[in-house]
Amino acid sequence: MPDQSIPSARPSTQSAPTPQPAGGHGISRRALLGTAGATGIVLGAAGGAAGYAAAPAQAAPLTSLGSDRAMFHGKHQPGITEGLQARGHLIAFDLAAGAGRKEAAALLRRWSTTAERLMAGEAAPHDDTAVARDAGPSSLTITFGFGHGFFDRTGLDKQRPSALDPLPDFSSDHLDKARSDGDLWVQIGANDALVAFHALRAIQQDAGEAARLRWQMNGFNRTPGATAHHMTARNLMGQLDGTRNPKPIDPDFDRRIFVPASGEPAWMANGSYAVVRRIRMLLDDWEKLSVTAQEAVVGRRKSNGAPLTGDHETSPMDLEKTDSKGEYVVPLNAHARITRPDRNGGAAMLRRPFSYHDGFGADGTPDAGLLFICWQADPLRGFVPVQRKLDRGDALSQFIRHEASALFAVPGGAAKGEYVGQRLLEG
Amino acid sequence: MPDQSIPSARPSTQSAPTPQPAGGHGISRRALLGTAGATGIVLGAAGGAAGYAAAPAQAAPLTSLGSDRAMFHGKHQPGITEGLQARGHLIAFDLAAGAGRKEAAALLRRWSTTAERLMAGEAAPHDDTAVARDAGPSSLTITFGFGHGFFDRTGLDKQRPSALDPLPDFSSDHLDKARSDGDLWVQIGANDALVAFHALRAIQQDAGEAARLRWQMNGFNRTPGATAHHMTARNLMGQLDGTRNPKPIDPDFDRRIFVPASGEPAWMANGSYAVVRRIRMLLDDWEKLSVTAQEAVVGRRKSNGAPLTGDHETSPMDLEKTDSKGEYVVPLNAHARITRPDRNGGAAMLRRPFSYHDGFGADGTPDAGLLFICWQADPLRGFVPVQRKLDRGDALSQFIRHEASALFAVPGGAAKGEYVGQRLLEG
Repeated sequence: MPDQSIPSARPSTQSAPTPQPAGGHGISRRALLGTAGATGIVLGAAGGAAGYAAAPAQAAPLTSLGSDRAMFHGKHQPGITEGLQARGHLIAFDLAAGAGRKEAAALLRRWSTTAERLMAGEAAPHDDTAVARDAGPSSLTITFGFGHGFFDRTGLDKQRPSALDPLPDFSSDHLDKARSDGDLWVQIGANDALVAFHALRAIQQDAGEAARLRWQMNGFNRTPGATAHHMTARNLMGQLDGTRNPKPIDPDFDRRIFVPASGEPAWMANGSYAVVRRIRMLLDDWEKLSVTAQEAVVGRRKSNGAPLTGDHETSPMDLEKTDSKGEYVVPLNAHARITRPDRNGGAAMLRRPFSYHDGFGADGTPDAGLLFICWQADPLRGFVPVQRKLDRGDALSQFIRHEASALFAVPGGAAKGEYVGQRLLEG
Repeated sequence: MPDQSIPSARPSTQSAPTPQPAGGHGISRRALLGTAGATGIVLGAAGGAAGYAAAPAQAAPLTSLGSDRAMFHGKHQPGITEGLQARGHLIAFDLAAGAGRKEAAALLRRWSTTAERLMAGEAAPHDDTAVARDAGPSSLTITFGFGHGFFDRTGLDKQRPSALDPLPDFSSDHLDKARSDGDLWVQIGANDALVAFHALRAIQQDAGEAARLRWQMNGFNRTPGATAHHMTARNLMGQLDGTRNPKPIDPDFDRRIFVPASGEPAWMANGSYAVVRRIRMLLDDWEKLSVTAQEAVVGRRKSNGAPLTGDHETSPMDLEKTDSKGEYVVPLNAHARITRPDRNGGAAMLRRPFSYHDGFGADGTPDAGLLFICWQADPLRGFVPVQRKLDRGDALSQFIRHEASALFAVPGGAAKGEYVGQRLLEG
């Protein structure tokens, strides 16, 4: 057949014959993490869907939603500080029986090549399914991490960071082991669901015989443009979520979120640790509360996220303020009181979640909540102390249930010509 | 607590105190169904998120993605001819034991009020969850239909149209009865996932004691702006899907898609029939085929949707053309040959689907495919004859599996002051 413009296991066809004009899609700026007032960061120059989309002659150029592009190469991996994306997939794999360090290295090399190409809006290296064809990169990010089990199976247990030691048990855990942990983790985010799905299938295809799917979850956030820019995101409880997230402009941001360049182990330089929790929200119960009761649980107003002692989302929270009866205005068990970083030894983590909704359980309650993902230089100073405090008295705990948990070491970004994890696997 | 700006069972608070400026968001035009070259239609004037979003002072105005608004009132219900939305929920309910015509009428009245308000970007009438707060209408549509069982339970069996008679069995069916049929159907679509989820919860809350959830499915399409305007959508097989969809500018569009104003039964005037099929795609098998083999199955090129006998998506298909060996260029069992309307007595239906992906089955294969929704004036002249032909020899059938099926009578749009279905329930 004459038409051969779709690549089919032929890397030489990576450029489609009719690249889309790049005019008008220069440097674009995207909101960072949806936090109010945060400055945008440059995700990168995106030349439309150049190299991929064979757009018809009459097509209008992509908007910035489609043409925005995150960079694969860099000091850190993508998918940590970029703005929340409208669609996400989390996937954990276990190395297959018989697969060791060599197979893992080849897999990370394949995955890195695929991630670099898809994030640039190009076709996958082999047998591209065309699902993302016509679309721009749509802020696609693909992020890779290693779980505790990876190191034994690859003979690299001496390289396993102590930060990957299993998280402590929390009394509120109702963990499903089949949807927890995993040797390898891939986080995919994009502002278009088909671009994200396309990446998911390409990553799965790359896994081949080297790794088996362990679990996979789908999530979502606001579509850019549905709200004004710089609005803090809302979760499925209707609360603003992320008000106090650290911002890259904060002086200690890097120190709290990323392993230093001189950190231990050396292969984790500029990396980060991701705690992943599938947190189901008991929405039927939650929605029975009045707004006033919900605000007492959270410690902030539902309308604008302001602390109960202030008027604006960014107003400082006055933890000592009492009402006319002498009761604390922000209750002692309010979620926002317990999670305040300055009450947790300065612990800080960068939360970058997706909401999820997988329909309804057999009991008719929604299977919905938060794919909580938080990033930190050290889980023992980030997630763990906060969760310990929540475990002892968070008013929100009766409305949520932690159903799955995982912890991954996410190495620093790959330099050009390098693949993610190379410093571990060839170190 | 001083802040009361979130409505809580107080309809008088439907207007938030700080409506967003409406400037610059006048009449907007949206692509229709993603078909190449189709003219846009006016969805309506959207004044940002006026009446709902209490946007902070520094917020930028919404883009058209957020402020685009479909109209609830009109000749037809919304959600039929509007452009594909990025996120969708399909929900079927059964009337509760003891609920009859009176309870059904009250339910449709509640649902209509909720739909009108949410589609305008306002809060739900009661106990709004705030999940959609800050966002514009984001092209939200909410559509209501009646299934076969509705009429017996409400004593309205004499009003049941014969077009609602059960669909014939097809040999390719693998139907899950628990996810098929239903007394009542609600289709929700929006370009923002939280706006769509918010509508889903409001519709569920309205159901109250009158109706029980029977099944619910989630779907997605391209985010507007991820591709150029007027691109035909791709499905999860990577094929352009909808090339030959009828267009509202076609002279016989209304006659094929909508029941005439003088049609039978009278309460279905300007209504339509929706066939809903959950069609799983066997993607692992499909993706093993070469692109050339996939194109022979479909009869069109994967790159641009052109028929195998032409160069462009809209080129006519030459069904008689043979190759040098005397074989038809478009194989006899090619999907596009079998579904050509002019080979099916002029049958035509308007397909307006969502893709779905619910993770992976126990066998490791993706639980993904198409929430096929087609609209027609008469299923016996639309879906049924086409599916009968497909059933007898469609090359695509070995890569798909119909897992659920339903058929609903979708009455015409409500006039102002009226609720959807009022002409049936109070006729």
